[in-house]
Amino acid sequence: MSRTTALIAALAATALSTPLIAQTRPGITAAAPVVPAQIEKMRDAALKDDVAYDIIEGITTEVGPRLAGTEAEARARTWSLAKLKALGFKNVRIETYQMPVWVRGEETAEVVSPFPQKMRLTALGNSGATPPEGLTAEIAYFPSFADLQAAPDGSLKGKIAFVSNAMVATQDGSSYGSYGVARFVGPNVAATKGAAAIVIRSIGSDHGRGPHAGLTTFAAGVTPIPAAALSTADADNLSRMIARGKPVTLKLVLTPQQTGTHESGNVIAEVPGSDPKAGIVLVGGHLDSWDLGTGAIDDGAGIAITAAAAKRFLDGPRPRRTIRVVWFGSEEVGGFGGRAYAEAHGSEKHATASESDFGADRVWRFEVNLPESAKPVGDRLAAALAPLGIVRGKGLGGDGSDVGPMMQKGVAAIDLNQSGQRYFDYHHTPEDTLDRIDPEQLRQNVAAWTAMLGIIANAPEEIGSVTPR
Amino acid sequence: MSRTTALIAALAATALSTPLIAQTRPGITAAAPVVPAQIEKMRDAALKDDVAYDIIEGITTEVGPRLAGTEAEARARTWSLAKLKALGFKNVRIETYQMPVWVRGEETAEVVSPFPQKMRLTALGNSGATPPEGLTAEIAYFPSFADLQAAPDGSLKGKIAFVSNAMVATQDGSSYGSYGVARFVGPNVAATKGAAAIVIRSIGSDHGRGPHAGLTTFAAGVTPIPAAALSTADADNLSRMIARGKPVTLKLVLTPQQTGTHESGNVIAEVPGSDPKAGIVLVGGHLDSWDLGTGAIDDGAGIAITAAAAKRFLDGPRPRRTIRVVWFGSEEVGGFGGRAYAEAHGSEKHATASESDFGADRVWRFEVNLPESAKPVGDRLAAALAPLGIVRGKGLGGDGSDVGPMMQKGVAAIDLNQSGQRYFDYHHTPEDTLDRIDPEQLRQNVAAWTAMLGIIANAPEEIGSVTPR
Repeated sequence: MSRTTALIAALAATALSTPLIAQTRPGITAAAPVVPAQIEKMRDAALKDDVAYDIIEGITTEVGPRLAGTEAEARARTWSLAKLKALGFKNVRIETYQMPVWVRGEETAEVVSPFPQKMRLTALGNSGATPPEGLTAEIAYFPSFADLQAAPDGSLKGKIAFVSNAMVATQDGSSYGSYGVARFVGPNVAATKGAAAIVIRSIGSDHGRGPHAGLTTFAAGVTPIPAAALSTADADNLSRMIARGKPVTLKLVLTPQQTGTHESGNVIAEVPGSDPKAGIVLVGGHLDSWDLGTGAIDDGAGIAITAAAAKRFLDGPRPRRTIRVVWFGSEEVGGFGGRAYAEAHGSEKHATASESDFGADRVWRFEVNLPESAKPVGDRLAAALAPLGIVRGKGLGGDGSDVGPMMQKGVAAIDLNQSGQRYFDYHHTPEDTLDRIDPEQLRQNVAAWTAMLGIIANAPEEIGSVTPR
Repeated sequence: MSRTTALIAALAATALSTPLIAQTRPGITAAAPVVPAQIEKMRDAALKDDVAYDIIEGITTEVGPRLAGTEAEARARTWSLAKLKALGFKNVRIETYQMPVWVRGEETAEVVSPFPQKMRLTALGNSGATPPEGLTAEIAYFPSFADLQAAPDGSLKGKIAFVSNAMVATQDGSSYGSYGVARFVGPNVAATKGAAAIVIRSIGSDHGRGPHAGLTTFAAGVTPIPAAALSTADADNLSRMIARGKPVTLKLVLTPQQTGTHESGNVIAEVPGSDPKAGIVLVGGHLDSWDLGTGAIDDGAGIAITAAAAKRFLDGPRPRRTIRVVWFGSEEVGGFGGRAYAEAHGSEKHATASESDFGADRVWRFEVNLPESAKPVGDRLAAALAPLGIVRGKGLGGDGSDVGPMMQKGVAAIDLNQSGQRYFDYHHTPEDTLDRIDPEQLRQNVAAWTAMLGIIANAPEEIGSVTPR
């Protein structure tokens, strides 16, 4: 699948790169966008980047998991401050805020009957707790979230709901939304129908034993029930047991808790621009991670790619616009960092906002949301990215939960989309470790972000506000 | 790598299959071995086998993990008795014996300094225990087992030894021995040098978080120390911390225990032959499994492949020799089932012994240890296996720890070697689940074993004893 994808991308790139080739032959196409040679040179040099890998290696080794609002996330901020200063960034600082913190407790499960065996799972963020000695109940089985929704009110009383929907990977990650609903709101739905607890098949495209963590949200007034994700292999095993037709009884022990309000924070670093009135180019990823892995693809990659690309402008000619790199806190657990940033900086002029939060596999597509007056900027961007095998998508840009609050204020969007074919094999699992980073694809990312920063931060055009996607 | 391997195997198969083609043209080569058409037909029909997959699906779903000597292994015997009877085998029975049983307790680890984070590991079989509150000590680092061996006596006093040797996969599995020594005897060596405990990089070729369990053995008079395998990803992370040059302190909690003597057993089933004097054809795998996964590749595959192949002779013409399928108990923890079998049946005449205990990826090679008088049997076997892409190895057969005690008595050996390129990605880990079975490769296995049984069980030649490998 990935080979076919690469082939299609390469063919598309050839087509798109025609304008780039054209610009080296002046006169053939008067309208061809011109990518400054300096930016091409910086982009191509970035294909040998080692800064991004060094950041991911560093934070996964020296900090590891960094759940939002915990002391581990605080250590990550300290580490980041030192790292960004050492890289030579200006105005490096931490901006703190307060947030509610949920933490994991014990988490075990076993089928009690008819086929006793242990199951691997992990509590979902905001999950309620079972009694310390556990909760044993019969399973009410739902192949999909829609089936759970269709269950009559009260029909789940005293039961453990089990939703087994099996995610299929897509390059653009769109299937996360379709299948993820079982996690995002499945527990709330089960709770309102009287369920004692809920387990779901992990929202993931792997076939392994590492469960996928992630947030769930209960509506106001709904008491959180114990809610957990079984590993995909365990969920499939449980489904096979259920298919044999006898009632299946599960014992769950989940003892997570809400621990009250604690400090979190964003780490900010800048490459000062020459024209303060031209607006800030905001880029970043998130510093916090789920607690099972070491946060390499989610989102060590994002902080590394954006900082490594921005660093190239510290070392080169000063850009017109200030490039601001933000390593956001608390993305995974509700986007507190992104909202805190927008509250603190919403009145500053931002030209564009961009986030890297989809691993480190190759960028295959970009999409923008630019004002009509800045249309040439998008065209130059297409020409600058084409040699990397990156095509222009049909949609409107506007991805990224951390930069979302700024985009909602009308800041223009530039999205560089990583390939999601294997992202959900590891997403939010214990398997999100350094080994999942492909150094060559990571370098392609740094080159893409370098090209993007080169075009956007130096664009002579005014980049004004847009209607958000 | 696997494509290249397949190509080489296919080319080799073409070369080897010449005799088989020759036998359809009588007169061209007088000496060409003749594979009876009935056996070719049974072999090819086995390429559509569903029995083997059904057995693996059944035991992983309805029993799951089945550590030797535990009630789970007893449930597995009950399950097996019913399954083998349902398949139509004769003389189906359980033969019990007693054995010492070690069981896992709590197992957690964390780096205390300089880079606090949790590590994933699992205690090795026969590991000693830490105090319940854990053991905290500085790490003494050894890149290889040889480095550990070279450490001066007493130099490890109060320290946790860490051996980081990284296994590389090989098709014939030979690297298990080379790297596995760190597990087999590393703990004993560390104990004799005064270490407080030992952790090793899992003996595995994956890059994941699931640690590889497995037995270790302490010499008489050596007090077992806590001994565990870190997941490969955790071990690599720990190595990176150590590479930064500061002392690394680890906290270990391991509370396994020896629980005394308990019952285990072998499950035996037969396809009766027409000539009781011709000797038994012994085939099998092991029923017990490590407790982290559900024992699909190790060794649900082996019991399934051998039984599925043997079943074809229940349904077809009666073989000359009795085919005896044994699902051995307690292989993983010291081979008690194999020794109990040899003790009970060593005086019966066995023609050959063969074991399947290397997963369910395709059989790529066979090797035999046959008496000179039975040389034509080996040649016919080569001709019968060649169309499946199976080549004759250069070595002498004699694999399989369960059938080892019978081979030591001089019973001839027929080995069908599965490809080990990905076996050690999952071996003894939580990841050894049904999903790791490739149904198409499993069917090739059943076809290979069917062909082998057809040739061996019906050979008109006497198959006498041999000098063991």
